[in-house]
Amino acid sequence: MPSHDHMVATVAAYLRGFAEGDADLICGLFAEDATLEDPVGSPPCIGGDAIRRFYTRIMKEGGARLELNGPVRTTARCAAFAFSSYLTRGGVDIRVDPIDVFEFDEAGKIKSMRAYWGPMNQVTTS
Amino acid sequence: MPSHDHMVATVAAYLRGFAEGDADLICGLFAEDATLEDPVGSPPCIGGDAIRRFYTRIMKEGGARLELNGPVRTTARCAAFAFSSYLTRGGVDIRVDPIDVFEFDEAGKIKSMRAYWGPMNQVTTS
Repeated sequence: MPSHDHMVATVAAYLRGFAEGDADLICGLFAEDATLEDPVGSPPCIGGDAIRRFYTRIMKEGGARLELNGPVRTTARCAAFAFSSYLTRGGVDIRVDPIDVFEFDEAGKIKSMRAYWGPMNQVTTS
Repeated sequence: MPSHDHMVATVAAYLRGFAEGDADLICGLFAEDATLEDPVGSPPCIGGDAIRRFYTRIMKEGGARLELNGPVRTTARCAAFAFSSYLTRGGVDIRVDPIDVFEFDEAGKIKSMRAYWGPMNQVTTS
């Protein structure tokens, strides 16, 4: 069972990966057979290669700055956290407010990532 | 597919149910075959009767005041929201910080509720 501290540190590393534009750091947090659904309801990315393509594409589009809103919630094998993502697309500054849920495997890697957000959670800030 | 507005209104009604100590209001938001896992990792409540017992017990222990932290996130059939729950147990004031995820059915009722929080998300405030 992953500890609270391990799950919180994983979330911190995930945010740092975005801050530093480091897709390797982020992908290293995931299990090889992990799944990613961002946003929930969209076709999932299945496996390490698909997840790497997902984050590499995001990094190429221009880095987002992620800012945690409140504490990371942990229970059993899961961590849930609310955050704001500040990014620029086509010269427009945007804020997106997701809640992500990470489920961890025995080795402490993320085995599933689900991101809850939709069009109503995006605002233009410039 | 439930609308963003419907899901946000359901979350608002859920919080109002706590504020008013109205278990009927809360239970009416759930489908008859709904499941509830609070916190995630504990044995789930399955079906309307078990869910009613869960909320009736909470209400009997003394009402909690729930305060939303940030916007309700909605996507596809799900709403996720971070909040703080202020309650008193044995004369001690406590704050618990969960993130709840509601999944909705076609009729717009909650078909699953999952609450992400653990011992590290509780603080004594008095």
